[in-house]
Parts: sequence; C-alpha cells; structure tokens
Amino acid sequence: MNDDISRRGLLGLGLAAAALPTLGRAQGDGVGFAVVGLGKLSLGQIVPGFAHCRSARLAALVSGHAENANRLAAEHKLPARSVYGYEDFDRIAADPRIEVVYIVLPNFLHAEYTIRALKAGKHVLCEKPMATSVGDAERMIAAAKAANRKLMIAYRCHYEPLNLYAMRKMRAGALGRPRLVVTNMGRQSDLSDPSDAWRLDLVKSGGGALTDMGIYGINGARYLLNEEPVEVRAWAQTDRRDPRFQTVEDMIAWEFRFPSGALSTGTTSFDQAGTMAWEVYGTSGKMNADPGCFYGGNRLVLGGMPGEREPKIVEIDQFAREMDWMADVVRGRAPMVSPGEEGLQDMRLMHAILESVARGGATVRTAWNYRRAVDPATAVPA
Amino acid sequence: MNDDISRRGLLGLGLAAAALPTLGRAQGDGVGFAVVGLGKLSLGQIVPGFAHCRSARLAALVSGHAENANRLAAEHKLPARSVYGYEDFDRIAADPRIEVVYIVLPNFLHAEYTIRALKAGKHVLCEKPMATSVGDAERMIAAAKAANRKLMIAYRCHYEPLNLYAMRKMRAGALGRPRLVVTNMGRQSDLSDPSDAWRLDLVKSGGGALTDMGIYGINGARYLLNEEPVEVRAWAQTDRRDPRFQTVEDMIAWEFRFPSGALSTGTTSFDQAGTMAWEVYGTSGKMNADPGCFYGGNRLVLGGMPGEREPKIVEIDQFAREMDWMADVVRGRAPMVSPGEEGLQDMRLMHAILESVARGGATVRTAWNYRRAVDPATAVPA
Repeated sequence: MNDDISRRGLLGLGLAAAALPTLGRAQGDGVGFAVVGLGKLSLGQIVPGFAHCRSARLAALVSGHAENANRLAAEHKLPARSVYGYEDFDRIAADPRIEVVYIVLPNFLHAEYTIRALKAGKHVLCEKPMATSVGDAERMIAAAKAANRKLMIAYRCHYEPLNLYAMRKMRAGALGRPRLVVTNMGRQSDLSDPSDAWRLDLVKSGGGALTDMGIYGINGARYLLNEEPVEVRAWAQTDRRDPRFQTVEDMIAWEFRFPSGALSTGTTSFDQAGTMAWEVYGTSGKMNADPGCFYGGNRLVLGGMPGEREPKIVEIDQFAREMDWMADVVRGRAPMVSPGEEGLQDMRLMHAILESVARGGATVRTAWNYRRAVDPATAVPA
Repeated sequence: MNDDISRRGLLGLGLAAAALPTLGRAQGDGVGFAVVGLGKLSLGQIVPGFAHCRSARLAALVSGHAENANRLAAEHKLPARSVYGYEDFDRIAADPRIEVVYIVLPNFLHAEYTIRALKAGKHVLCEKPMATSVGDAERMIAAAKAANRKLMIAYRCHYEPLNLYAMRKMRAGALGRPRLVVTNMGRQSDLSDPSDAWRLDLVKSGGGALTDMGIYGINGARYLLNEEPVEVRAWAQTDRRDPRFQTVEDMIAWEFRFPSGALSTGTTSFDQAGTMAWEVYGTSGKMNADPGCFYGGNRLVLGGMPGEREPKIVEIDQFAREMDWMADVVRGRAPMVSPGEEGLQDMRLMHAILESVARGGATVRTAWNYRRAVDPATAVPA
C-alpha cells in the first residue's frame, strides 16, 4: 500500500525531526503529538497507533513513571528530552516538536492539563468525557478560545467507517423516518485494577459506567439522529453492598426525547459482560451494530431493506485516523468535527441523566440549544 | 420422520372422526378444535397448522362469513354442520367433536366468547392479549374455574425452541447474573386493512401497538428472567395528527424493575419497520435474538461465551406445537404452562404501563403477587 510506504517514510523523518525539528517539520509536515498519561489506552492503542498515521507523529511522552516512559521513548526512537514528568509539564511550551497535546489522563485531570497545554500554546486532543463537570468543560472551551488554539474531543466513532456508513444511511433516509435508537454500553469493572479504580470513584470519573461507557450511547444516539435531546429521564439500579459502587451508580437506564419525535433508550453498567451495541429503528428499516463502537471487529446488520444485510466495512486503525484528523485540523486541511462544544453537550446530558436519577426519574428538560456545526456524515470521508 | 407418518395417519383418522366422532376419538385420540374467527392469523397460520399437529385436529369453524367458512370447511373435509355463525355459536355445546375452542377474534371479543365457550362445557385456547381489561381477564379465569374447564392463553413463545433454549441458558446461569432485558417489538400498521383497523381502536384492542406487539416484550422479559416486575415506568410518543393514532398511543417505551435488581427496557410502535427483537445482558454473557418471536426464521446470537455463537435451533410449526400442547393438557398428558393467570399478569402490566404514561411517567408499583406455577423452561421439551 502506498499509504503504508509513505507512512513509514514519515516515521523515518519523524526520527530525524526529533533531532532536527525544523528540517523534520519542513520535510515531512508531520504534526508532533505529546501523549499525556501512559495508561492502558495509551500503551495498547494510541502510541502503537502512530505507526499507522499519515499526518500525526509521536513527539513526546508525559508520565509520572519516568522509567516506563524512558523505556517507551527509546522503543519509539524518541530522544530522552522528549520525556516529561507532570512537574515539568509546562516546559512543553518551549518544545517546538510538540504541536498537539493528547490528554489521556483520568477524567478529573482533563481540565487542568488541557488548560495548561493551551496556555503553553499547544493544540489539544482530549479523551472523552472531556471533563468531570459542565463548568470544567466550559472553562476548557474558553481557554482554547483565549489561546486561539484547537480543542478537539476524541470521539473516535465520528471518524470510524461503520458509524460513518450508518450516519450516511440515516441522512439519506434509508430507514425512513427515524423512530428509536437503542444503545447498550457496559462491561465488567475491577476495583483492583488501577485503570478501573479511578473510574469507580465519582470525583475522579464524574460518573462511573455512565461517563466511561454510557457516553458512547449518548453521543451515538445524537450522531445517528443528527439532532439533540429536549427531554431526559433516567433510572439507576445499583447494589451499594458491592464495594465497586460506593460512590458511583452501576446500571443506569435513560430515555431521550428528540424534537422530531424520535426516542432513544440507553443503558450502561459496570457489572455486565462487555457490550457496545446500538440499534436504530425507522419507519421502513432498521440497523443493528454489535459491537458498534469497539476499537475493531465492529459489525453492522441492516434489516428491513431487501438485498442489503451486512455491508462490507473496511477496518482501519481508528486511533490513527482520529489523530491524523486532528493533525489535519491543525494544518488547516480538515474541518473541526468534534470540538469542545460537542464534548460539552455530552457533559450536559450526563448531568441531566444524573439529575433525573437523583430526582426519582423526573423529566429534565434541556434548556441549552446546542447544534452541531459540522456533521461527521458529510465532513469525514468513508 | 416417524412423527410425520403418524401425524398423517392421525389426519386420516381425523377425517373419519368428523363423520364418526365416537370411533374417531377412540381410535385417534385426537382433540377436536373449533377455530373462532377467520382473520389473517387463522387463515395464514392456525388452520394450516393443524396439518402439522399430532394431538389437535380441526373440528369446526366459527365465522360471520358463512360463504368463506363453508369453502374453507370443504377444503379441510369438514362437514357443513361443522361451520357455525356467531348467532348459533352456543350450539357448540351439543357438538361432541369440539373439545377445545380456539378464540382468534379481535381482542374486545375474547372475554365474551371465552366465557360462552366455557359455559358450553368446552376448554378454551385464547389468543393474547387475553382481554382488553383486567376485569374481563379475571372474569374469564373465574368462568373457567366455575366450569371446571381449561383456559390456556396462546403464548406461542413458551413452546418455541429458540425461546426455550434461551430460557434454559438463563436458568443454568450461562450469562451469569441477569442484569438487563431489552425488547423492541413493532411494525407498520395500516388503518385501511380491516385486521389493523380494530387494532388501532382503543376500545377494540385495549391499547394499540402495546397490546398487539409490546406484549411479546413484556412477556419475554418475564419468561427470560423468570421473575415478575415490581416497578413500572413508561413514556409515550404519539403523533395525534396521524389518523392511525386518534385513540391509541403509537410508540411506548417502558422500564421494569425486578426484585433481583434486573431491569428491562421495552419499546413498541405501530409506525416502524417490523421488528421482534430481544437481548439479554448478564454479568458474564449476552444473548441477542432478532427476530426473536416471529412465526419462523428466528435467530439467536450468543456473545460473551467463547466457542458458542449461533446455536442450531430446529424450526417447527409453532402453532401446531401450541395447539398440540393444549390438546395434551386436555388429555392430562401435559401440564398447563400458560394459564389464564399468565395472561392476567400481562394485562396488569400493560395497564400499569398505560397508567404510568397517563401520570407523566410516574413509577407504578405492582401490588399483586403473581408467581408462575410452571416454568416453560423445565416443563416444555426442546
């Protein structure tokens, strides 16, 4: 594949660029990323993903574990000075190899490190949920505006072929008028696993399974329908005797009502077998994706439309595509599809869900009027 | 197949039995059924289903259209006196060829004809929903007790291989602890189709899509979990400008909470592509059936359990099995699995759903304590 060759070429240049940044950037035009936080997602998906990038390249690592970070840097042919600790994080301002800071920290640290990176003059790609409160999300957006830098939230599915295919089917009216989106996103959590321990802490995660898994369903219903909920109701089911659920809810079931009259029902749980499934029912057809939002192996079944059952979807490295998109946004080669405002809308909806739970399932009416500026279905190629 | 041979043999005897009832019953031990109401379901599924029965046989037809009924009777080699109109329905009391009356009328006529059949000394198999009100359902059960006759509700899925397989998996703990059942049952309705016109009338149907399609999800959640909801909440979405929805709701989304802590979310609609899908999520596995409750072509996918993805399910004539079960119950060869009480429980739950809708989604707590006497999972062979 030509892409593969040119990518390897860029990676070679990336190495040179680390030694000779100006030359490297001029030649390869690669956009240097600093990955902040070296947990499972960074080690398993994001850092390896750079090998499949066209525009983005790994330029720095930020971690509290210097030894691990140095070893990883050496594996990726990064010089020792490309490894940062949290105490000297702000030193990135002086590092021209870093143009984008990718925040992969526990949720409660997203706001602080996003704002510090923006103040250091860097663009930010931030994992979802973008924060643990609506206020923090608003401060992050304001900081990006003040710094005149890009803030993109890592909504992987906005750039993923199966979900893009489904969005385009929806926009084309292939299911008729949309009536219902059903989303179920959950998995087993493990309090003894450090990468889950903070997710089971309300302050650190912002909401347990809801903010870790449920957000895929919330965002999914919105991008599939391409409209925003006006009413929210939710119900929780949590066993407080389970040591995992001392501060966060376990299972939450919610309903959204959309202006068109479409409904969405969603559930999430941290005490169920892993699942990332969604279904759409329209007046004349249906789609079922199971898994629908995973890193790979997603599968779509179309029903109600004769002659078309399981479309062929090309698998890609979803993280590479997302990072390349951010790089292209920075270079002015691609529109911003998932800005901070998109992340803020999910923060508001998750807050509305928790408010409804706290109020015994009362209907919460959304008073804010978010409208997505750019539709992934039309902006992102298949 | 031996079954096939003996069934054909019985059918031959059935024909003789019509002419010589005493001889026929003694020889074949077939149980004669009168089918009341010759709409789509009777013509498309039930009457043809007798050809696949082992114990049940068609003995009479009851219809308001004498000409159609006579033609159908001739096709099935029934004598002219086996055709009844509604005006002379009670004459069935004197017809020993009829042991079971199968009520396939519009819902609002179920109670009246069930009670008349019971008073005529016949056993009754009644289509679901068993009635249009809780009170009627209770009167039907009381009438069966008073007459010392069997009243079975036609819960097809209690006798259907895919659903029985799924129930047994659940009882065996194959998914771990059950957490969530999601059901979606809907289709397009057509006001100009006489078989839909009464279903779109609140008085005649008892509740539109909810009582026609939603009942599969309500009953499904209960037989999959083998427990009964203690809390009910529901939300409707109905376009009153649509001429179909002048008296009934269109889409309803509900939530059930079960004593174990399991939840069920269900939806139904009369303005969506046809679907009869259910999913179960447990702590260690999941199952997805789509379609899960149709006459044929049902398909089950197991997830979260390595090595087992799509079990082989043998297709059967579901109506034949259900009618044979009723015949065997009458002969004392099989336990009653879906009695009137089972139908009454769904009537109460549908009423609770409509009450919650009317009260703006308020939680309705169930005050009755139904417990299924016989579990299909153990009583009905695969």
